[in-house]
Amino acid sequence: MTAFTQIVLDKIDGVATITLDRPEKMNAFTGRMGAEIAAAIDDTDADDEVRAVIVTGRGERAFCAGADLTPEDGGSVFSDPSAVDDLADERVRDGGGRLTLRLFSSRKPLIGACNGVAVGVGATMQLPFDIRLCSENARFGFVFARRGIVPEAASSWFLPRLVGMQTALEWCMTGRIFDADEALDRGLVRSVHPQGELMDAAMGIAREIADNTSAVSVAMTRAMLWRLGAGGHPMDAHRIDSRAIYRLSRSEDAKEGIASFLEKRPPAYPDTVSANMPDFYPWWEEPTYE
Amino acid sequence: MTAFTQIVLDKIDGVATITLDRPEKMNAFTGRMGAEIAAAIDDTDADDEVRAVIVTGRGERAFCAGADLTPEDGGSVFSDPSAVDDLADERVRDGGGRLTLRLFSSRKPLIGACNGVAVGVGATMQLPFDIRLCSENARFGFVFARRGIVPEAASSWFLPRLVGMQTALEWCMTGRIFDADEALDRGLVRSVHPQGELMDAAMGIAREIADNTSAVSVAMTRAMLWRLGAGGHPMDAHRIDSRAIYRLSRSEDAKEGIASFLEKRPPAYPDTVSANMPDFYPWWEEPTYE
Amino acid sequence: MTAFTQIVLDKIDGVATITLDRPEKMNAFTGRMGAEIAAAIDDTDADDEVRAVIVTGRGERAFCAGADLTPEDGGSVFSDPSAVDDLADERVRDGGGRLTLRLFSSRKPLIGACNGVAVGVGATMQLPFDIRLCSENARFGFVFARRGIVPEAASSWFLPRLVGMQTALEWCMTGRIFDADEALDRGLVRSVHPQGELMDAAMGIAREIADNTSAVSVAMTRAMLWRLGAGGHPMDAHRIDSRAIYRLSRSEDAKEGIASFLEKRPPAYPDTVSANMPDFYPWWEEPTYE
Repeated sequence: MTAFTQIVLDKIDGVATITLDRPEKMNAFTGRMGAEIAAAIDDTDADDEVRAVIVTGRGERAFCAGADLTPEDGGSVFSDPSAVDDLADERVRDGGGRLTLRLFSSRKPLIGACNGVAVGVGATMQLPFDIRLCSENARFGFVFARRGIVPEAASSWFLPRLVGMQTALEWCMTGRIFDADEALDRGLVRSVHPQGELMDAAMGIAREIADNTSAVSVAMTRAMLWRLGAGGHPMDAHRIDSRAIYRLSRSEDAKEGIASFLEKRPPAYPDTVSANMPDFYPWWEEPTYE
Repeated sequence: MTAFTQIVLDKIDGVATITLDRPEKMNAFTGRMGAEIAAAIDDTDADDEVRAVIVTGRGERAFCAGADLTPEDGGSVFSDPSAVDDLADERVRDGGGRLTLRLFSSRKPLIGACNGVAVGVGATMQLPFDIRLCSENARFGFVFARRGIVPEAASSWFLPRLVGMQTALEWCMTGRIFDADEALDRGLVRSVHPQGELMDAAMGIAREIADNTSAVSVAMTRAMLWRLGAGGHPMDAHRIDSRAIYRLSRSEDAKEGIASFLEKRPPAYPDTVSANMPDFYPWWEEPTYE
Repeated sequence: MTAFTQIVLDKIDGVATITLDRPEKMNAFTGRMGAEIAAAIDDTDADDEVRAVIVTGRGERAFCAGADLTPEDGGSVFSDPSAVDDLADERVRDGGGRLTLRLFSSRKPLIGACNGVAVGVGATMQLPFDIRLCSENARFGFVFARRGIVPEAASSWFLPRLVGMQTALEWCMTGRIFDADEALDRGLVRSVHPQGELMDAAMGIAREIADNTSAVSVAMTRAMLWRLGAGGHPMDAHRIDSRAIYRLSRSEDAKEGIASFLEKRPPAYPDTVSANMPDFYPWWEEPTYE
């Protein structure tokens, strides 16, 4: 990884800040941005001076408006097939999941400072953060079902563990946008702040960790809680959603989902549950009673 | 399955409604009702026009007052031994669990509109719904310990995933009845409505899904969240509670639990933990430290 | 086990109360106290007259101020190496985890009445209780990262299941002390009471269980919810945190953590994530994508 072009990595007094830096695109996610964030985490993991990492977005409008859907970013809107030689289910990997699995393995605490709109991968990339704060104008949306695809980035593993099954199901099945108060009420974020006070609040938590705790203790604590306390591993979800995103992003429903969104009209999805489920569904073996 | 006699299945504009329809019995659950609900889910799964399913009860008094304890419904109060040829642990299956496992596998979103009292299996059958709403007069009770039996219908798997361990333990260990506000506060339901507005609220969520999302996306999302996000499988609970319900429903405590309930007097349970645990307890192999 | 010297076990009308009884030491935890609590649970499990167990601390100041750090309690501050012949990872066992695993297997409902400060093992020993209440002056702290060690007593398994991942991570990574209101808001306790009313409230729940339910039903319910509803087993956490506590309690960071705490000065931890992670880290095999 050479110089970052879509993010900025700052370090001040033991606290690193990763800023998604495409404000003219509402910090929309690209394959390159994902790789840059992962590289920044490699950096913060290896730098013993860094005791905590804040992730935020440039500007007061958006944290990240989701995957960049504009043509100049090529065909890799939902997945990153270029990363592998073939596109078999066992090889195609969702780019969001590559990132969230890297975040999952961070040795340093990750603190999200969500400064505005967070939709699609802009919402799901926040789930492996340890602590999430947001500004009053933040808006969240797990909008995948409105685009004809499915929750990606291993979010089907993360989200129920953070907000419970009922809320996770409602948010992902309706795909609706919800505001900061609902995010707080359901436990997605731990606090809501005026835009101008958000970074100070995030920094306050980072400093509380940096000034009072052992780095080894915190790295061990992070691994222990996520790996012994959450149950299972997000790789299970990453395997399934990678092939689902790859298949469904080429479906008629996905075309209609994106077209109706861009044309600001109600969707008319043609696919059916009887005929168009991806061929690896069901992916599990149903247990028998005995 | 021929015509339904204990439920009604309606379909209007892409939204199906299953109504438990024994208002003179407070919609009490029978083996037949369970089979009819399961058959209705087979129907809604197969019907591509159906985009969401609402489940409610007839009348303004009860969603479902639990298993029908009256003699005319035979000996199958707590289990359905008639369904199998022998009653060995490996064969006896709890009827509530047959139903909740079928609901678990639904391809369509399930929205509960709990319109009144929901006790015993009337409460546990709601747990595999995706989204639960209730009326202001709703009352819930996981009353099994007050009847000398145990939580059935795989509720030991579902309930902690919905409301957390502490609340699940308190509700199931005390067996007490609680109201709509407590159900909302602890996260069992996502909202409480005046009786006259309950169905409109449920329909609003159903329409939000039906009008904006891809059916394939929603079916995949449902499977992914429950199977990758919840951890484990409710079959594990169904296996245990089936044999526990079968054994304990024939115990002295169960006789006393039902007798004291029907006679509206304090119970005097004769069984003890030292002498009367079912013989398959403990059903697990305790891990050793090494 | 002969007579108890650090706890008191009372039984009144079917409800047992275990009182941590070292008020002059803020009920600080010792290896002996842990063994006495475990022995008391052996007693309440075997005594069919006991239908519920309340655990509280003597006095109005502390439930338990954590592991006794004073010299007269020997070198077994964080672990109990005397219990085994060798100190290999496979043999060294954390004393807090021995206790919480015993509490996990209790056949009787455990109700915590936290009457004041609960820090370190004073907080983690409460996690396997079924229901937790506290007084208005209660204070909690999962302070391990401020002492250069890690969450013990299988708390990395229990805590996320009780309060969710975000809160568990924040509490354990910052190690900060928090009050009764925050404990209630995040779901650690189910209610907060004036000091003078705490025991009555705990007794009210105990009586609700004792007066209305079958002992066999409650014992089965307890096992079913914890073992089928929580997912996994706390032994997985006990294995890891035992060796982590043993290793890290002898680290430079732990020395500094305790020294800075006793000297009431900011810590200056010397260990680094690059050089000083325990040699069994990572203890898991990372899953591959395929």
